[in-house]
Amino acid sequence: MSPQALAQGIVDGQAMAQRRAMAKAITLLESTRADHRAQADELLTALLPHTGRALRLGISGVPGVGKSTFIEALGLYLIGQGHRVAVLAVDPSSSVSGGSILGDKTRMERLSVHERAYIRPSPSSGTLGGVAEKTREAMLVCEAAGYDVVIVETVGVGQSETAVHGMTDMFCLLQLPNAGDDLQAIKKGVMELADLVVINKADLDPDAATRAQAQITSSLRLLGLHGHPEHMHHDERIWHPQVIRISALRGQGVADFWAQVQTFSRLQQDSGRWQHKRQQQARAWMWERIDAGLREAFRQHAAVRQKLPALSDAVLQGRQVPSAAARELLAVFLRAQEQAC
Amino acid sequence: MSPQALAQGIVDGQAMAQRRAMAKAITLLESTRADHRAQADELLTALLPHTGRALRLGISGVPGVGKSTFIEALGLYLIGQGHRVAVLAVDPSSSVSGGSILGDKTRMERLSVHERAYIRPSPSSGTLGGVAEKTREAMLVCEAAGYDVVIVETVGVGQSETAVHGMTDMFCLLQLPNAGDDLQAIKKGVMELADLVVINKADLDPDAATRAQAQITSSLRLLGLHGHPEHMHHDERIWHPQVIRISALRGQGVADFWAQVQTFSRLQQDSGRWQHKRQQQARAWMWERIDAGLREAFRQHAAVRQKLPALSDAVLQGRQVPSAAARELLAVFLRAQEQAC
Repeated sequence: MSPQALAQGIVDGQAMAQRRAMAKAITLLESTRADHRAQADELLTALLPHTGRALRLGISGVPGVGKSTFIEALGLYLIGQGHRVAVLAVDPSSSVSGGSILGDKTRMERLSVHERAYIRPSPSSGTLGGVAEKTREAMLVCEAAGYDVVIVETVGVGQSETAVHGMTDMFCLLQLPNAGDDLQAIKKGVMELADLVVINKADLDPDAATRAQAQITSSLRLLGLHGHPEHMHHDERIWHPQVIRISALRGQGVADFWAQVQTFSRLQQDSGRWQHKRQQQARAWMWERIDAGLREAFRQHAAVRQKLPALSDAVLQGRQVPSAAARELLAVFLRAQEQAC
Repeated sequence: MSPQALAQGIVDGQAMAQRRAMAKAITLLESTRADHRAQADELLTALLPHTGRALRLGISGVPGVGKSTFIEALGLYLIGQGHRVAVLAVDPSSSVSGGSILGDKTRMERLSVHERAYIRPSPSSGTLGGVAEKTREAMLVCEAAGYDVVIVETVGVGQSETAVHGMTDMFCLLQLPNAGDDLQAIKKGVMELADLVVINKADLDPDAATRAQAQITSSLRLLGLHGHPEHMHHDERIWHPQVIRISALRGQGVADFWAQVQTFSRLQQDSGRWQHKRQQQARAWMWERIDAGLREAFRQHAAVRQKLPALSDAVLQGRQVPSAAARELLAVFLRAQEQAC
């Protein structure tokens, strides 16, 4: 099937036909073959005019916090409100573990079989940058297919959160009602990314949940007050990160959560921050792929491959200055271009 | 003067002759002219066998914490013990501010005029990566000249700390006896880098200093306990970060500080961590310079410069997929090489 026909199947297809086109498209995007990559770029270009209208929601939290239960409850609630919901994941460890998040669809039993939901596990190969790129591209496929809420799930180790923050409009952090956990989230820089902190399992120990809410609220205030302007992810005049308590298992608090998301979305859109953030994300995505591509080309370059092992050893053994070794390798890599120019 | 003669002046020169050779060498290293750069690489290669024997100490802390007073007290103490002390700085903001750290040598009045001390302000141009590279190279000059303690100062904004941590054997964080400050240091990821936390100005409010010491000790324990192994900068079996109280102004606690440094240094050397860390630093330095060089060459490339503005606009305006734009630009950049291969 041509990329154009595939794009049409995604945009105009109905029910199972659309679902098959989406699966085919995402498989094409994940292929590493050069001819597939060229087709994938054609496909993405054809889809692009039909993308960008979904709300992109990042959801993070350590294992055991109840992400799947929460996402299932949220997804079913949103479908009840007339939305179509896609759930994607970024989990760079899934190639090792065999897929720790969303690998087992039975964890979202009811959502995964719903015709208005589309669930896709994390791409299972490559670096974080590569996994994130495939998820970003899959997000465009879902948007072109008319899914108007895209949830991107990740698991709390810091770097993958930054990647998911970089591809979503709003980033939500799930926490347990356990006062010690917030220090970990602060340390990893995850707390700082959060537009909304959700204390799940609040029914288990309501007092602990209330204490955790107060403590996280106070930490967020300190992070906001003392933050260096360059490093700020929020504009405090528009939105101050909120902390809410829910119980996903009992379905309590999901409507409250969605109300917060809508308030955030409205304030951001009215202030122009929404569009500005998406532009910054697009620019950063392009440069991240350029950097990754440059390094890949460098490592594959014949003359670099010939010189690198000996120079690298010399650097490790203190026989060569690292910056001089870098300049020597760069000269080898760039020589071909200078000659051509 | 040839790079070889300059190297000899640094290694064998005495007093003012050596000092002049060092200043000339560092000026050469900081030059951006291509012929200077080639000479600088020759110089560094000639110096390399005479480097690596100093203790490299990173010292960080927010403005007002008393870094200069502490470094002067420490430097004079070390000279009294027979050492020769070099003080360098990494301050990427100095091109804007005109040199906020070490720019004004009068802040270390007694140390700066001592014949056994060498003080050099931060290179004042370029990116953090460029500034850090020049400081690393200046460090090699100081080591070749026989300075056996090299102190690299930086000011607390997070990224420059990571750079200084990446070029030193031990990283020390100065804090005020103010309980709220540790949250900031944790947030910026600076606390996590610290091998030793020093509470300065402990004489002003001894009770507050004791409370801060207890609180930071407890934070460090939590960071250590919960840390993800990949992100750990310490091996807890060998060294657990310590917290000490000093008063640099009164000269109290400097000997205690140095005893901690020596204990750390001995434990690290005995366990092989010292050498391992230096090797990792050398490798990371080489790759950081390669990445920076690749991006620079990419941005300067004639065909890329011609295509970039329009593609970049298309990405920002949502008319082009960022990953596809990246692949298009990379193809343009790499075409010359493929043809030459």
